[in-house]
Amino acid sequence: MNKPSEPQKTETAVTPRAQDYAQWYLDVIKKGSMAEHSPVRGCMVIRPHGYAVWEKMQRELDDRFKATGHENAYFPLFIPLSFFSKEEKHASGFAKECAVITHHRLKSANGEVVVDPESKLEEPLVVRPTSETIIWAQYKNWIQSYRDLPLLINQWANVVRWEMRTRLFLRTAEFLWQEGHTAHATEKEALEETWRMLDVYADFAENVMAVPVVKGRKTEGERFAGALETLSIEGMMQDGKALQMGTSHYLGQNFSKGADVKFQNKEGQLEYVYATSWGVSTRLVGALIMTHSDDNGLVLPPKLAPIQVIVIPIFKTPDEQARTVAEAKKVAAELKALGVAVRVDDRDGIMPGAKYYEWEGKGVPLRIEVGPKDLEKGSLCIARRFVAEIPGEAPADQRRRRKVFLPRAEAIASIAPTLAAMQKELLELARTRRTARTRVIDKLEDYEKFFKGEGGGFAWVHWAGTPAQEEEMTQRFETSIRCLPFEDQIPAEAKGEGVCILTGQPSKQRVLMSKSY
Amino acid sequence: MNKPSEPQKTETAVTPRAQDYAQWYLDVIKKGSMAEHSPVRGCMVIRPHGYAVWEKMQRELDDRFKATGHENAYFPLFIPLSFFSKEEKHASGFAKECAVITHHRLKSANGEVVVDPESKLEEPLVVRPTSETIIWAQYKNWIQSYRDLPLLINQWANVVRWEMRTRLFLRTAEFLWQEGHTAHATEKEALEETWRMLDVYADFAENVMAVPVVKGRKTEGERFAGALETLSIEGMMQDGKALQMGTSHYLGQNFSKGADVKFQNKEGQLEYVYATSWGVSTRLVGALIMTHSDDNGLVLPPKLAPIQVIVIPIFKTPDEQARTVAEAKKVAAELKALGVAVRVDDRDGIMPGAKYYEWEGKGVPLRIEVGPKDLEKGSLCIARRFVAEIPGEAPADQRRRRKVFLPRAEAIASIAPTLAAMQKELLELARTRRTARTRVIDKLEDYEKFFKGEGGGFAWVHWAGTPAQEEEMTQRFETSIRCLPFEDQIPAEAKGEGVCILTGQPSKQRVLMSKSY
Repeated sequence: MNKPSEPQKTETAVTPRAQDYAQWYLDVIKKGSMAEHSPVRGCMVIRPHGYAVWEKMQRELDDRFKATGHENAYFPLFIPLSFFSKEEKHASGFAKECAVITHHRLKSANGEVVVDPESKLEEPLVVRPTSETIIWAQYKNWIQSYRDLPLLINQWANVVRWEMRTRLFLRTAEFLWQEGHTAHATEKEALEETWRMLDVYADFAENVMAVPVVKGRKTEGERFAGALETLSIEGMMQDGKALQMGTSHYLGQNFSKGADVKFQNKEGQLEYVYATSWGVSTRLVGALIMTHSDDNGLVLPPKLAPIQVIVIPIFKTPDEQARTVAEAKKVAAELKALGVAVRVDDRDGIMPGAKYYEWEGKGVPLRIEVGPKDLEKGSLCIARRFVAEIPGEAPADQRRRRKVFLPRAEAIASIAPTLAAMQKELLELARTRRTARTRVIDKLEDYEKFFKGEGGGFAWVHWAGTPAQEEEMTQRFETSIRCLPFEDQIPAEAKGEGVCILTGQPSKQRVLMSKSY
Repeated sequence: MNKPSEPQKTETAVTPRAQDYAQWYLDVIKKGSMAEHSPVRGCMVIRPHGYAVWEKMQRELDDRFKATGHENAYFPLFIPLSFFSKEEKHASGFAKECAVITHHRLKSANGEVVVDPESKLEEPLVVRPTSETIIWAQYKNWIQSYRDLPLLINQWANVVRWEMRTRLFLRTAEFLWQEGHTAHATEKEALEETWRMLDVYADFAENVMAVPVVKGRKTEGERFAGALETLSIEGMMQDGKALQMGTSHYLGQNFSKGADVKFQNKEGQLEYVYATSWGVSTRLVGALIMTHSDDNGLVLPPKLAPIQVIVIPIFKTPDEQARTVAEAKKVAAELKALGVAVRVDDRDGIMPGAKYYEWEGKGVPLRIEVGPKDLEKGSLCIARRFVAEIPGEAPADQRRRRKVFLPRAEAIASIAPTLAAMQKELLELARTRRTARTRVIDKLEDYEKFFKGEGGGFAWVHWAGTPAQEEEMTQRFETSIRCLPFEDQIPAEAKGEGVCILTGQPSKQRVLMSKSY
């Protein structure tokens, strides 16, 4: 055995949330080896642990897309500049900040590599910021008759939107996402699809990510350029700010008209098709981190944890090492057979405490410790990454709940139910946190107090203002209308009609206002 | 029921291989809805059926990468131009034809969208043609000690190499691939990794794609720029040309020196790490198509078929429709429970013949027909997409083998074994075809006859020429040295020493020569 190294706490210490939330987020990402900045402005590197979380998200989402009848396909990374002119309304909305390709060759000159000026493209190409225009150009060849509809396609891809101020996962120039692009014979079917995919996102957010969300419609000003309706799911992060986690757009006939995509309906007449698009991105990893993590680092819901259980043998002598490592591997094999994602950390020369610290920082839900005494007693020690908080509980009592010793068979049998319970607890914890920072507010002075004095959160507010007055609210309070929530999303105490908090005009229902990312 | 439409054979007819091989390939892709050209020069659209095949390949490969200890990560799409200067030797080899980003904003001008000249980048960015330089810049932060090694990372990504003459799947400007990039403490470990990953590729090619391959080393001139050793697997297409299907590179310390990546070894000394990289791409889909397909269209090995069995109810009256569709769904449910990828085609208004034609063109291995008579008899009709050819067999006999009627239970039970048998038969068929077009050649006149008169194939040839003489062979015969094969790859009749076919100089072992894609 090599000389054990001490845990290097200084390098990966996590700044407490209460002290500096933005730094806490970066520290959690660093300690969890989730991602880091790259030498390319605005582009991040997703490290293996972060990418493994994204892969688990992808698998869960992809299964849901396929279960609702969608197929994957792949379209070009580049879009000819002229496509943006064709869709100027579309482009003017969001596509201004793009990566533009103007040349296609490098050459060596005096030991340097330079762009060959001879290789200038006749028409510049734009790295896709989203793919509506290039995809609809193709759909023109695929759709002739009502028999070709609905066309239900999804693409997993990278996209680029030039960003000046970036934040790991939440806002980067290049990001990974999926974009669904569907074509339908009727407005009704397209609207159903728009709502259906929002439900798929909401179900994924709550039941897989354990992040409660509010579903609703965006205001006109916040709509996707070219959309007749934009729906979104909004989660609350631990600093009380909202994060838009996914959007689903009803595009009407805007894109089919732009790309001239008509179909022959059952009556033999030519009609433009009806379109939707919908997407979520690696931003969801940021949402996951900001919703669940604590001052010890990353916390992952079991359904998205690449490693659900880490088994750590504890030993001092070579004999103890042999016995505890053998038992750790046996425990892991038994758990694997039960469908648990488990790994053994039997690295030599690293102190158990350093290992605990490392896996805690990576958000592994459960740790099993296997020491010589456990072997003697036929027991295992199970430590949970977190427990639901009980108000007023003494720290010693909480520690007792976090770490339990169980007879071996009982311990093995407890793992899957404990993981399932932790998944539920995380959603409940997030719900409780959200409730604590949610207010029904009727007066502007209370609104000001909430967002300027109390740190803010979600505010249920009556609104009947103009877009200019919306902007005024943003200027004064840094808040915005996150959505016009679906009726079933409004809590009982916020239901009903009222008058606009700013103008006093009548309002049919409250909207959700908040600061946001 | 709507009026049945006739199969539109004219639109999707397949040109026979013997008549025009290049057109046959395009026709197979079109009839199979695998891919098509896009409005962006050199970039293709991968249609859902083609993408589903790629997804199956990805899953199989990814499982193998993970089983050999690799993790996935994601690095930026863009590489700063200066990185290419740092690696000029590397860049000069292959990276000249690249997509270069020079601007980051569009603007509207007179109703057109144009590139904003104000948005010129200080340093141009290059869309990755491969990621060694950007990845090794990051590894510098990840590797300090021998404890951090080996570092075994893979990336699934899109890359761009500007191509003037493109061919769907085989050569496109943008393509999808995986690139493994590993770092090791010793040369020995890095070499083992290089060979291990070639074995992973060869195993995948033969046992999943059913494509037999020759494993070997590339000549110096064909090595990846910056590699000390490039290994490849070479398959033979149905026109007798070789296709390089995957490469694995031993990079020595070239990249670690370029990026200054040192580690402290167990003795406490600083050393540069040893590197490998390896990759396969969507080119494999092209290899799959060209190896197995026939004059009726796509043929897929069962392990890569997104749909392994298509069940087609056959009916004339509404009553027959109700009964055959119900039975088709029941059959499908039973097969699904057995782990078979099955789909029911109960579309109304399309003739059974048109459906057969469509699924045949998509390479579905087995078709089950469910007609009213089958219901009465309690039987099912199973039609195979292909059968192994028996020399001299009458067409009627072959048809009898292709389509069998079995009692229902027996039919269901036969599906999985039949799929497994078809998987093996395809590999055997490909082996037989390869053998028929392989020659051991000692004289230049026989070589000329083989490649100019007989259509060519694989030639086992003794070689001791210079790189200039290699080039001479290419000029004269359009052939090249595909690889210096590993000894166990050389067939018995080609083993042993001899003299170079061109120079008469002594040669230790034969090389593999062929025309190629």
